[in-house]
Amino acid sequence: MSEKDEDFSGWYNTIIEEAGLIDKRYPIKGMDTWLPYGLKLRNLIDDIIDDEMERTNHDEYEFPLLIPQTEFQKEADHIEGFGAEVFWVTHGGETEFDIPLLLRPTSETAMYPLFKLWIRSHTDLPFKTYQTVNTFRYETKQTRSFIRVREIHFFEAHTAHATYEDAEAQIIEDLDILERMSDSLCMPFVLCKRPEWDKFAGAHYTIGADVLMPDLRALQLASVHHYKTNFAEPYEIEYEDEEGDFHHVHQTTYGMSERMIGAIVGVHGDDQGLRLPPEIAPQQVVIVPVIFDEASEDVLEACASAKETLTDAGFRAHVDDRDETAGFKYNDLEQKGVPLRVEIGPRDLENDNAVLVPRDARQDDVTIESQHAVKTLGGGKLVIPQADLVDAVEEQLEALKTRMRQAADALLEENLLTVKTIEEAKESMGVLRTWWCGDDTCAETIEEEGNKAVLGFPRTVEGDELVPVDKTTGSCVACQSETDQVIYMAKTY
Amino acid sequence: MSEKDEDFSGWYNTIIEEAGLIDKRYPIKGMDTWLPYGLKLRNLIDDIIDDEMERTNHDEYEFPLLIPQTEFQKEADHIEGFGAEVFWVTHGGETEFDIPLLLRPTSETAMYPLFKLWIRSHTDLPFKTYQTVNTFRYETKQTRSFIRVREIHFFEAHTAHATYEDAEAQIIEDLDILERMSDSLCMPFVLCKRPEWDKFAGAHYTIGADVLMPDLRALQLASVHHYKTNFAEPYEIEYEDEEGDFHHVHQTTYGMSERMIGAIVGVHGDDQGLRLPPEIAPQQVVIVPVIFDEASEDVLEACASAKETLTDAGFRAHVDDRDETAGFKYNDLEQKGVPLRVEIGPRDLENDNAVLVPRDARQDDVTIESQHAVKTLGGGKLVIPQADLVDAVEEQLEALKTRMRQAADALLEENLLTVKTIEEAKESMGVLRTWWCGDDTCAETIEEEGNKAVLGFPRTVEGDELVPVDKTTGSCVACQSETDQVIYMAKTY
Repeated sequence: MSEKDEDFSGWYNTIIEEAGLIDKRYPIKGMDTWLPYGLKLRNLIDDIIDDEMERTNHDEYEFPLLIPQTEFQKEADHIEGFGAEVFWVTHGGETEFDIPLLLRPTSETAMYPLFKLWIRSHTDLPFKTYQTVNTFRYETKQTRSFIRVREIHFFEAHTAHATYEDAEAQIIEDLDILERMSDSLCMPFVLCKRPEWDKFAGAHYTIGADVLMPDLRALQLASVHHYKTNFAEPYEIEYEDEEGDFHHVHQTTYGMSERMIGAIVGVHGDDQGLRLPPEIAPQQVVIVPVIFDEASEDVLEACASAKETLTDAGFRAHVDDRDETAGFKYNDLEQKGVPLRVEIGPRDLENDNAVLVPRDARQDDVTIESQHAVKTLGGGKLVIPQADLVDAVEEQLEALKTRMRQAADALLEENLLTVKTIEEAKESMGVLRTWWCGDDTCAETIEEEGNKAVLGFPRTVEGDELVPVDKTTGSCVACQSETDQVIYMAKTY
Repeated sequence: MSEKDEDFSGWYNTIIEEAGLIDKRYPIKGMDTWLPYGLKLRNLIDDIIDDEMERTNHDEYEFPLLIPQTEFQKEADHIEGFGAEVFWVTHGGETEFDIPLLLRPTSETAMYPLFKLWIRSHTDLPFKTYQTVNTFRYETKQTRSFIRVREIHFFEAHTAHATYEDAEAQIIEDLDILERMSDSLCMPFVLCKRPEWDKFAGAHYTIGADVLMPDLRALQLASVHHYKTNFAEPYEIEYEDEEGDFHHVHQTTYGMSERMIGAIVGVHGDDQGLRLPPEIAPQQVVIVPVIFDEASEDVLEACASAKETLTDAGFRAHVDDRDETAGFKYNDLEQKGVPLRVEIGPRDLENDNAVLVPRDARQDDVTIESQHAVKTLGGGKLVIPQADLVDAVEEQLEALKTRMRQAADALLEENLLTVKTIEEAKESMGVLRTWWCGDDTCAETIEEEGNKAVLGFPRTVEGDELVPVDKTTGSCVACQSETDQVIYMAKTY
């Protein structure tokens, strides 16, 4: 049994530090230091989000971190939902503030006083904004790097629309963005409309996207919210229509966080270390010079030239010229999850070849193939002509991406189980499919006796509508009365 | 007299909002909302810094925002310098913390507990890091956007070295980076070794770079500090040398902030609005279709094609296809400081021409010339063949950059004045050059009776050394005793 399978949590905590993503030793619980490699990874994910936001005409803003208590309290459900986990700033120097300030746990209450000033007319709508900032929550539960932290790297899109339906259309666009993100991250998810008690504090409804982690617990990756006019009313965000009448705007938000990195580490990693999806790997291709006594200069030159060729072709390519053994480098690059390693040694040089080694080449269940290969060595190594380098790298990164997605899909599919009794629910792990009659008492039974959380009602996008994934009829898992409400539940993070 | 000359402060406060950089109406004093255009400008400056950091082998980190009081207090001068302007976080939800936390005013005390863990051996040195984050200072003085704010967008490089001299060499590298930044921003500065009482809290010495603003007050643009072992001692940052002996590291820091944007607005702007240096302009070239009744589709196509040509050549080019008059657009683009406008209308199309209009074309003292021009129109407009578009745009942006730098140089040079008496100092504005004997009482006289701050001892880099700008002898401005200590002083922000 692999170390990852045996002790997922221990493996996770070790690998994120060994791979150089973060350092956990900062003297405040739940606040980590981002190391250069982790920060590069985070930035590449942010870049994808920025591109998606530009493609969909969202403008980037940055609102202040601090929020006056008076603004924060305007929406009743919101303060109830977040109040207990807010960091309070009470003093500046020796001066105690009349109105305490708080660190944003999320930015509705920072943004909407300005939205009120900016949105005047129907011509201002749709109003589509986002920001990527750090948010703060005073977590009292056990913290875990990337997954449950007190300083959270957070993306939040906030939009305002003329009608309820326009806001719903925004949600469809958000889910399309999510689908594209999930492709970049090789990361399948289930989409659920959250139950009433689990929706975002102040939302009309919430759609959550959950990833199944290898310990078979669900991790929320993203959430999208329809606010209706729930915030527009207390924050007085109104627009004037063509007839001169005033209406509250309908709002949506879309949130994703550094949890994505937690999911990538968890779902894709193995006992050797990280496995990074090619699109977000800080180093997509690392070229290792295989140097013996002679000809080392030629080899180094060939490596530099290969790097230049790959960089010009748009890849993030590096030469690993550290003064270490090839074996040390191979291990280190595997630990860091570098998708593709290129080895060039004196003999390769003679034959104008290079050796390609995808990150998963050592796995038993993986077969590495290439239409460029002149030879295949042991351990999934491909010998290719240097003239084919760019094409072969592209081919191998694409193939690796496909394999990573397939493995992640398999994990989710194999563990999406239908259960019919509370006993079964209690004893099963994974995403559990069942039925719920909608009764609150039954929900309590499910969550308490089943020892699972209700993820919600599974949804999928069909055309431009969000529809139930299946409409089968079954018996409520708690009371056994017949119902057509399919739900997913899971042990969650 | 121009509006800017007449009421610089009022002009500044108006223009930053009208150009869409920030919104000042956030309900906390000294905390502004970054609008999309301002954030793009900020990001482009950050990109230059990132490139410089990569070029000089600094690694990017991100440390937590919150610092425990216990860590903050380890260096005595530091707490004395910053204690009065710290935001204190005292509660998480209802829980009062045993050890209060503070929002970083700067990050020494967040970083160095980790430096202690990371730096072990001489092979770890030099250790070169940086982060770009927001910092917080509870300013009690009047706030001003970008210049004196309570949430500060901040770049800070932190390095550790084996010896005092290695740290000094780092400072020379920092000043070279600053010189390159100043070239990108078309922004001259004076460099001073700060007097003892004005060095950074905890530093061994501080070098400040000051810009002269059009109201003839000096604005600190950047500062570089040699810490010697002042922080390494309380934070116990030691390395083992080749002989197995342990030594404290010598540290430096280098800080720059959003003040750079304040300087750009102030130094380069005019009554029409911003004037952005081409290297950091979010839109370097904006193409305006000049549309009459007919042929509008052809014009729009030509604009789109021009945009593509310029984008492919590496320029940030946009088409202004808003449904507004050309006049409205010209004003708006001038207000936003777009360096170069391209106009394409039906007649230009017929002749395969385009019209280029640099941002400063309307200024009386500016002559616009081009080796590509087939004709020059009134108001400094250049008619150029579309085939020459890329070359002509490059030529005009380069020429604009040169003119902007020359104008900024002239402002500084014309207002660098030598004064010999306290009376003269009191009545003069600008960067005032004089002599100071080094006596504390004289310094007090200078600052109080002269009503100026001592910027310090002017320095310049010669080869790889920091040397005095001039070594002339003169009489101390306060006591008239002879001295060779030249100082600069100014009314400061």
